[in-house]
This record gives sequence, C-alpha cells and structure tokens, in this order.
Amino acid sequence: MNERITVVGAGLVGCLLSVMLAKRGYRVTLVERRSDIRSAAIYGGRSINLAMSDRGLAALDEAGIKDAILKVAIPMSGRMMHSTDGHQTYQPYGAEGQAINSVSRGELNKVLLSCAEECGVSIVFDHRCVDVDTATATAVFEHSTTGEQRTVQADVLFGADGAYSAVRDRLMRQDRFDYSQTYLAHGYKELHIPPAADGGFVLDKNSLHIWPRHSYMMIALPNLDGSFTCTLFFAHKGSPSFAELTSRDAVEQFFNEQFPDAVPLMPTLLDDFMTNPESSLVTVRCAPWVTAGEKVALIGDAAHAIVPFYGQGMNAGFEDCRILMLCLDAENGDWPRTLRRYESMRKPAGDAIADLALDNFIEMRDKVADERFLLRKKIEGWIHAHYPTKFIPLYTLVTFSPHVPYHEALRVGRAQDVLMERIMTTVPGGPECWNSEGGLAAIKAIMDELPTLAMEHQ
Amino acid sequence: MNERITVVGAGLVGCLLSVMLAKRGYRVTLVERRSDIRSAAIYGGRSINLAMSDRGLAALDEAGIKDAILKVAIPMSGRMMHSTDGHQTYQPYGAEGQAINSVSRGELNKVLLSCAEECGVSIVFDHRCVDVDTATATAVFEHSTTGEQRTVQADVLFGADGAYSAVRDRLMRQDRFDYSQTYLAHGYKELHIPPAADGGFVLDKNSLHIWPRHSYMMIALPNLDGSFTCTLFFAHKGSPSFAELTSRDAVEQFFNEQFPDAVPLMPTLLDDFMTNPESSLVTVRCAPWVTAGEKVALIGDAAHAIVPFYGQGMNAGFEDCRILMLCLDAENGDWPRTLRRYESMRKPAGDAIADLALDNFIEMRDKVADERFLLRKKIEGWIHAHYPTKFIPLYTLVTFSPHVPYHEALRVGRAQDVLMERIMTTVPGGPECWNSEGGLAAIKAIMDELPTLAMEHQ
Repeated sequence: MNERITVVGAGLVGCLLSVMLAKRGYRVTLVERRSDIRSAAIYGGRSINLAMSDRGLAALDEAGIKDAILKVAIPMSGRMMHSTDGHQTYQPYGAEGQAINSVSRGELNKVLLSCAEECGVSIVFDHRCVDVDTATATAVFEHSTTGEQRTVQADVLFGADGAYSAVRDRLMRQDRFDYSQTYLAHGYKELHIPPAADGGFVLDKNSLHIWPRHSYMMIALPNLDGSFTCTLFFAHKGSPSFAELTSRDAVEQFFNEQFPDAVPLMPTLLDDFMTNPESSLVTVRCAPWVTAGEKVALIGDAAHAIVPFYGQGMNAGFEDCRILMLCLDAENGDWPRTLRRYESMRKPAGDAIADLALDNFIEMRDKVADERFLLRKKIEGWIHAHYPTKFIPLYTLVTFSPHVPYHEALRVGRAQDVLMERIMTTVPGGPECWNSEGGLAAIKAIMDELPTLAMEHQ
Repeated sequence: MNERITVVGAGLVGCLLSVMLAKRGYRVTLVERRSDIRSAAIYGGRSINLAMSDRGLAALDEAGIKDAILKVAIPMSGRMMHSTDGHQTYQPYGAEGQAINSVSRGELNKVLLSCAEECGVSIVFDHRCVDVDTATATAVFEHSTTGEQRTVQADVLFGADGAYSAVRDRLMRQDRFDYSQTYLAHGYKELHIPPAADGGFVLDKNSLHIWPRHSYMMIALPNLDGSFTCTLFFAHKGSPSFAELTSRDAVEQFFNEQFPDAVPLMPTLLDDFMTNPESSLVTVRCAPWVTAGEKVALIGDAAHAIVPFYGQGMNAGFEDCRILMLCLDAENGDWPRTLRRYESMRKPAGDAIADLALDNFIEMRDKVADERFLLRKKIEGWIHAHYPTKFIPLYTLVTFSPHVPYHEALRVGRAQDVLMERIMTTVPGGPECWNSEGGLAAIKAIMDELPTLAMEHQ
C-alpha cells in the first residue's frame, strides 16, 4: 500500500488523482511543467470557465472536496438562446433542481493543488517531463530555467499532462501505438461581459447563454464577480470566419449584425477581439492507455482530449480518477490488474464522449435555433416525466447520470433518436399536436409497449 | 527554373522525385539518413520484393527509366492459391498480357540512386534530418556518426522520408495538423524458398503465390535468382498468432499443419522464423501535406503510409511524383500553386488507396479461398470482356488503369459491389448457373440498361 506513484501534470486531473491516491496511502510525487499558479497569473486568454456536472461532482465527492468546490460554483439550470433580434428562449437542461455549474478553472486548480499538499503529495513545479522509461516507471524532468535534470523513480507513473501530453509523446515512439489528432475547422476566441455598475449580472445568472448562428455560435458563462466569460466558436477560414475579421471595423460590423443584444454589454469587445488569441479545437484518441508491463498509464486529456461542446472534458477526466479508484478496490491494490481493468472500462467511455462532444457542437450552434428540435426536447421532457424508467434524454444521461458510462449513454441515445423520430412522425396532425388528446394517446401507445431501459452502471 | 530543391529521404520515392526534378533543370539536393546501399547490405529481414504495376511504370516511363527496371522484374500474371491439402488454384489478375511485376526493393533503389547521380542530383548520405524551418524550406541535418550538423537552404523541400518521416514529425508540432497512425492487429515475418538445385524455380515463376488461411496468410514472390521471398502475415497476439509460436517445435507443427506443401521447399524455415523480426503494419494519414507558405510538402509514405495488401505502396508514391510533374506543367513552374494542386489531387487518392489496401487484406487472406468469391471474379471477367466500357473490375482499375485516380477506382468499385450482388442474386438457378443460356440472358438484361462508366482521368 505504500507504493510510489509519479503523476505528471498538476492540472485538474493530475491534482485530483494525486489527492485520491495520497488519501489511500500511496506516496505521490506530482510534477508540473509550469510555475505554481497560486503565486502567478497564467490563465490569460484561455477559456477560464468550466461546466462542472454530476460526473465531476461524483469524483470530487469521492475525494471529499465536493462541497468546497460547489461553494465557488454558479449553478446553470438551462440554456438561454439569444436570437439575432435579441429575443431570449429558455430551455432547461434537466428536471427541476438539476443544473450544471460554472466554475473558474484557475480557482478550481488552486483549491485542488492546496488539497493535494494537505494530503501529503510532494509537488514539484517548473519541471518538464523529457523522458519516461516505461519498463521501470522512471521519468526524467528538466527545470524550465536552469535546465537541470532530475530523475524520479516510482512503481507506477500516470501521464495526466493534457492534450499535448509529453508522456503520450514518449509512448508514441513505441511500436504499435495507435494515435490520432483531428482538428475542427472551427477555433475559438475568448471575450468578456463585465458586471453591471452595481456589481450585479447583466444577463440571467443561472443560465448558460448561447447565441446560435448555424455555422458558428457565441456562448457566455457566469463568473462569481458578476461578469460573464464569452467564447466565440467560429471557422478559422472561409466566410464568415476569423480570417475575415482582421480589422476593428469588420469585427464591429459583424457583431452588430449577428449579436446586437450582446454588443452593448461588451465595452471592451474590439480590444479583446484584436488582442486575445484564436485557439484551436482538437480531438485526440490513442491506444493503448496502459503500457506493456502495466507501469505507465494515461489519464484525462492525455488519453482522450475532446472538444468542449458537451462540457465534459474535465468531467470525463475526473470520472477516470473515480473509476480508477473503483478498479483499485476491485483488484485489491494489484496495480497491473487495476490498470488493465481501468483501460477496459474507460477507453470505450473516452471514445464515446469524444463523439458526443463533436455531435453536440451541431446541436448547440444549429439545432437549438430550430423549432422542431425544441419541440422534440419538450416532448422528451414529458415522456421522461411520465416514463422515467423507459426514457432518459441523452443530455440527462451524459450530464446528470454519473453512474451510466458514456458509451452506454451514446448507445441508448442513438436508439432514442430512432424512437423520437417515430413519435414525431406518428403523432396525428404533426408533432405540434403532441399534447392534444390524440397526440398523447399516440405517444402512450408507443411508450407502453417499450421495455424498461437496461443499462450498465458503474 | 533553377530553384533549389531539397528532398529528404533517398528511398524509392525520394530518388524518383529527384530524378524527375533534376531532368527539369532544378538543382536538387537529396539527403539520406542511412549509408549508400550500393556499398552496404542493409536490407536483411525486411520484405525485399515489391509488386510494380502500371502506376509505378507510368511514373518510371515519365522519368525515362521504365525499360531498365522491367529488365530486372519478373511478371506475375495472377494469383496461385495453395489450399491446405496442397491443391493449387490459379486466378488471373487481369486480361491476357496484363501482369504485375516482382522487383527487388534494394536493386530498384540502387538503380534509382545511380540514375539520380547521373542526372546531377547532389546526394548526401549518413545525414539525419533534425529540424525544418517551414517558412524558409531550410533544413538541418546531423551526421550519423560524427554528430556534425549542416544546414541546407532551398526554395522548396520535400519530405520523402517514409512512414516514420522526420519532416512530418516537424509538421506535427505546428498547429492544426491532422494526423493518425493505426496499427493492424497483424504483423509479418519474412521467410525464404531457395532455388532448385539446377537454379530453377520450385513454384510457378509467373504467379504471386498465396496460402490463404482466413485470419492469416502466407505469400511468396519470385526473385531473379530462382528463389522466392515468403511473407507470413499473422496476428501478433491471440490464437493462432506469433505470440504462440515461440519454440521451433511449435513453428514446425504449425507449418506442417497449415502449409504442408510449402514446408519441403523451405529448408531454413525454423532458423528464419526464429531469427527474422516480427514487423508491424501501420496506416498513416495526415493533413495538410503542404505547409502554409507552400515551401514544404510531404510525398510517398511520409504522406500516406499504407498496408501492403494491394501492392500499391511504392506505386502510389511513384504516382505522387508523376502527378506532381503534371501539376508543375499545368502551373508553369509556379511552386505554391503547383503544391496546392498536387495536394488537392493526391490527398483523396492517398486516403482511397489506404482504405483499398486494408480491404484487400480480407480479400487475400479470406475471400480468395471462397467458392462464391471466385465465381464472382469469373463473372466479372466475362462482363468486363463483353462490356468493357461499362464494367472494369476494381483490381483492374487499381492495378492496370494508371490514369484513373485511386478515389475514382474506390467509388466505381463500391458501385460495382452493389451491381455484382444484384447479378449474383438475380441469375436464375443461382450464380453457379451464370453461363447457362438463362444466366447470361439475365446478366445481359442488367448490363444492357447500364450507362457507360464515367470516370475522371488524370
């Protein structure tokens, strides 16, 4: 039980993993390439809000820090869609009382770092991983300014070092490592809505705001100080795209046309747009996550970097940690068996959430502005309320069902697509008439014959 | 017209590209990581035969060296399938007079190297590419023993350095470079059939021999000296697999059971099996092939490494070179426009031949042992002979139609799959009766109503 574990990367997942392992008595060394963010401001220009949902919370709960995090989170119970003429339409994410939570990535990371220290994790900052011996779980790190190298020996090493993982780069040099990195044609840029003069929120505080514009969109998430962090997801090239918006005039005209209700709320829009970087969106898949000999494993974005459109990147990484602990218990601390079991449970989940996240970009930027889609969501809500054991909307499975694996959610969601298409076309008089007497009778006739949902839980 | 061009990698594609460019007056520097193979034997344990077909020959013709290569090639006009009981079944690849050609990779490379020298190409051996500046087409090379570095400046740089390309590795570090490497669960091992005592061939010289065994296969290609090079394509793990054949006894028993007619022809089987490496099979896809600024481009395996089952790896790389010259002519030597056009023509072709090669593994190891499949091939041959403008078998499109792009071949092949399925199920009395009066009438009725094939040519 006192094996030595090296965790590479003190981001969200690396910190949480270290906390969980230290609480079980392992001797954990956590090594981070950058400086201690608690003493340096380094999050400028990156998307700083995250949507923490039930999967992330389940993992934090396991680590005993759920309540501390919820104190600095803002619940968002639904989407608020903004049309071009400024009209707002609200769509709840789930049932009454269900919400996702806007949290600051930087603040969350600071809390997790301090928590790791309190648990006795030895944290080494400013050291970049330059080599890993997969046979011995020995890693070499180089100091970012002095260039001095130090070697860290361990029994097990985790690469929790993100989408551009150095540990994974090392695994790629081994034979038969499958790998893909795929960029979206869309990138993103961060923008800003400040608080009102009195410190209040200028948009509904408990919503995730979306300006869906078919081929692109802007979103805004609330911060504790009354501000909103906005993100424009937009094509890199083509028309319209970032490539076209190179002057302040062009940006101003574009925003006035497309986001007229947001422009008055964004006094620093033009400066922000010209200054903040245009970032890329990548999906990374790889296999195996665990090396032959079972001494080195990938976790979080290092194993499965996904696009942000389901708000599940951090949640998926935290869930990796929770499931790893579950495997460790099931295998009585036998690390090789634990890591094999972890990989077999999480690789299909990682692939599924990557697909779901790509699909949800289409839903967010395009479908949420579609009448038929919103109607379908309403019908789904009614069916779920009346047949809760037979129908659970996909969004609910992904976001509010932390014990249903992502790949089960994906499988059930695909089947429900077929079912909903059948219902939408069966309702007499068209789907608009779904809550007429005849409509509800048609829906009930279909639902009554369906079996109860059978899903794997973990 | 006297721009300087650096070609990284003096393998088959790098050499042919250098020859073509030098013949057009460009000043070409060709840099190779390894030593000059004309003075060193370095091909031990690697698959040394290649199947040169019409696409490769069309490119060699463009470079003026087709006849020199054909002199050292052995034509193979069909597949000879060997069943477990030693029965041999012959299946022609195409029409009378059509053949693919067994050539030695090493000999071909030596001829191409000498040809490049004769054309005035400056060849630098023993230098590994360690850096590329994509903005200036400047590359840094390091001597393999002294470690000394030299910088080569150019107007355009080509990465022709194979499946594990160093130039591509450099491009991967740029933003938004899509990349995937995917390994087959199967690997391969090279084995050997020596010539007869009198120097003759112990199997039919003008066939590609296949021992199809459903989940795996062995093949043999003839060499000029009367020997055959055999390759066993076999799962790395599982049952049966390389992982199971770790003792001489196990190997002997397996071969006696599965390849009894080949064993007496392989006197060094056990030594070869225990000594020769178990190699991997990878498919590499990436994009873009041409960097922003259009000064660096990938070509051949560096751009599209494929599995060997269609015998098209070298042919595809040579075709890249031929099409690049075609683009250069069309764009009057304007390199940026040439490279963009080259990429737009060849990227879809590279993706298509990668898919075709993966599909053909199933065909070679499994379907060629299937009666219905062989029957379909016979019917296809008859249809092609009677409706040559309406039906061209996929194998003929890929192998003997050098002006039809691979992606056109793939598209037409998929449509013909549907057509053949229809014909096989329509023939009265079942497909066995295809050449009865009623069978031929049914086939003619279907074919007569079809339009002439419309395909892009290049």
